[in-house]
Amino acid sequence: MSLVLEPAAQDLLFREARTANTFTDEPVTDDQIQAIHDLVKYGPTSMNQQPLRIVLVRSAEARDRLGTHLSEGNRKKTLAAPLVAIVAADLEFHEELPSQFPHFPEARNLFADRAVRERSARLNALLQVGYFIIGVRAAGLVAGPMTGFDAEGVDKEFFGDGEHSVLAVVNIGRPGENAWFPRSPRLTYEQVVTTV
Amino acid sequence: MSLVLEPAAQDLLFREARTANTFTDEPVTDDQIQAIHDLVKYGPTSMNQQPLRIVLVRSAEARDRLGTHLSEGNRKKTLAAPLVAIVAADLEFHEELPSQFPHFPEARNLFADRAVRERSARLNALLQVGYFIIGVRAAGLVAGPMTGFDAEGVDKEFFGDGEHSVLAVVNIGRPGENAWFPRSPRLTYEQVVTTV
Repeated sequence: MSLVLEPAAQDLLFREARTANTFTDEPVTDDQIQAIHDLVKYGPTSMNQQPLRIVLVRSAEARDRLGTHLSEGNRKKTLAAPLVAIVAADLEFHEELPSQFPHFPEARNLFADRAVRERSARLNALLQVGYFIIGVRAAGLVAGPMTGFDAEGVDKEFFGDGEHSVLAVVNIGRPGENAWFPRSPRLTYEQVVTTV
Repeated sequence: MSLVLEPAAQDLLFREARTANTFTDEPVTDDQIQAIHDLVKYGPTSMNQQPLRIVLVRSAEARDRLGTHLSEGNRKKTLAAPLVAIVAADLEFHEELPSQFPHFPEARNLFADRAVRERSARLNALLQVGYFIIGVRAAGLVAGPMTGFDAEGVDKEFFGDGEHSVLAVVNIGRPGENAWFPRSPRLTYEQVVTTV
């Protein structure tokens, strides 16, 4: 037994957790999202950058706006979820560094270049999306990250400031009837890990 | 109580988990890394792409090679860890799709374009790096993801095929003496989450 995390938690977060294709009507509450944030906010990012921003798409009007940018194959499933979250990188994250990384006041200056900033924002925000998905599962919910959409369209529609870069659309809820396909295979240890 | 995951697991994975600045000499075994992989391999990726590849840097010679590409501020801490992992995106991940996403045999063709493939590989591999960091913590170890290095240099040094893109270098071990700085602050829920 090389893992310390107990088996029930392993199952909840990874082994039995799945991306659902159908959902029940049970709402996902703001309290649940707050509890998830309060857990996963501790996940590490480079220089404590924390570039992830989350837009909860709740109103019918906002759902319709999102729907126009989703690929055909993702639209119906995503809009059927009780909650849809747009996860994006804040390209102006460096403005928070003086307060978030106080022992290195010059940190903000390292990100003066837009291309450097964008690369770092996307990288660290994607780590945080990984933590967020685990956090949704920690709340007993399923999270389906989708990347089939018009990113430029979503950026303009939901941010419009040129300072955010959408990463994924995540549908969140409880699995409904016939929620799962058979699980797809996984690469073996030998295919993934090498030693030098 | 909006979370189902029990408090001890929350502490292990997020609340009490930290990035260490010093390490004990206790080795990190291949068995541990295999157990971590066997857990986090289930984390979701778009179309089951699974682009993450991991190079365990164990030999003194490989550590020296890695050291030359690390930024000054990261070198000493990283090379002091009992295990260093290079995490990278496999830009040829699509070659595995016929076996990994068997119900959609055309999936591979969606990634014929190199730029499309690279973007998707990096995005999904970064989600997997997030899962991997959680998995290291599930094994009772600390994981410090570092992005301060010459990425092009590491790609050439450790892959050399033009088909991998390094994402981070992760030092792994058990915390040593004076392993922690005071924890940096975190953005509030209101700074991160908005509702539309």
